Amino acid sequence: MESAPAIQKLLDELERMPGIGPKSAQRIAYWMLNSDRETVLRLADAIVEVKNTVHFCSRCFNYAEGDLCEVCASHKRDESAICVVSEPRDIAAIERTAAFSGVYHVLGGVLSPMDGVGPDDLHIAELLKRLTDETVREVVLATNPNVEGETTAAYLARLIKPLGIEVTRLASGLPVGGDLEFADEITLGRAIESRRPL
Amino acid sequence: MESAPAIQKLLDELERMPGIGPKSAQRIAYWMLNSDRETVLRLADAIVEVKNTVHFCSRCFNYAEGDLCEVCASHKRDESAICVVSEPRDIAAIERTAAFSGVYHVLGGVLSPMDGVGPDDLHIAELLKRLTDETVREVVLATNPNVEGETTAAYLARLIKPLGIEVTRLASGLPVGGDLEFADEITLGRAIESRRPL
Repeated sequence: MESAPAIQKLLDELERMPGIGPKSAQRIAYWMLNSDRETVLRLADAIVEVKNTVHFCSRCFNYAEGDLCEVCASHKRDESAICVVSEPRDIAAIERTAAFSGVYHVLGGVLSPMDGVGPDDLHIAELLKRLTDETVREVVLATNPNVEGETTAAYLARLIKPLGIEVTRLASGLPVGGDLEFADEITLGRAIESRRPL
Repeated sequence: MESAPAIQKLLDELERMPGIGPKSAQRIAYWMLNSDRETVLRLADAIVEVKNTVHFCSRCFNYAEGDLCEVCASHKRDESAICVVSEPRDIAAIERTAAFSGVYHVLGGVLSPMDGVGPDDLHIAELLKRLTDETVREVVLATNPNVEGETTAAYLARLIKPLGIEVTRLASGLPVGGDLEFADEITLGRAIESRRPL
């Protein structure tokens, strides 16, 4: 393969990105070679800038550029409701729904004894401290609806309920626009159990 | 959407890349945020380096870091055979086959009256100059087997044949491992016309 060393190096680095195989890396590399200098260098700058300016919010461990993330720094959020998520990307997903006006707390993972992740590896102590310091009314446990996520939610519920704070969990059920016929039986079972009056 | 400005900027730039939609951009951005600084900055450096060091080979218009590309600079190539391709990426594809030991010439596109691309917009004059300067025995026309590629190949053949140089074209036919039943009729027709004795 007679590729210029700089191109080969770029291909190697591009292939490290998630979801990018050799073909996609090549397509992107040729796009970079063909695009004007300014467009491509703007991407390189954006990458460097993200690594230089983004760190974790000192309160909720979301990604932040200042000391606090944009949610914690906002004056429009309801600080009496904290939504607990596993990763910062989950905050982005919930924000897109515009259905939650409270603040967040990022655990930085979920309990997973198989992978050696225990309570001390997550930001659980910091969450409990927020619950005593602040006047929190409700904690929404928004970990994923899988084994680790459910275990983590159950563990947190047991810690938080004694503090007299309402603990809620995201609803499980049929996806909107989904088809009853094609739902797996666990999801359909949950949808039946959680049926509600109309 | 409460994303840090630096993250939003990165997402915007990532989405410019070919084949990268909002979901892939987000996945890559989070990978960059979670990966160690060194890995991510190495990618940014590789991008900048490619734009700074890679330009076109002065002889064949392949991508090159020096004055000549790696193929033209090599002493192991058969300079009496020139393979004419549309884009530098086609050279990479042919080199991977290890079936061609000659040198290349990149046209920088194909003839396309619809898009206003005429002979003067391609590196055709430079190709003809190489054919008089050098002792070339064969020109392999390796433009794509579609309307523009065939037109360009026919045009070049008409120019080159009078110079007494052998002009060949890549074979069309059934893809190896392909299925006769599922071949389109034009490809199957070509495969029958170009049948060869065993």
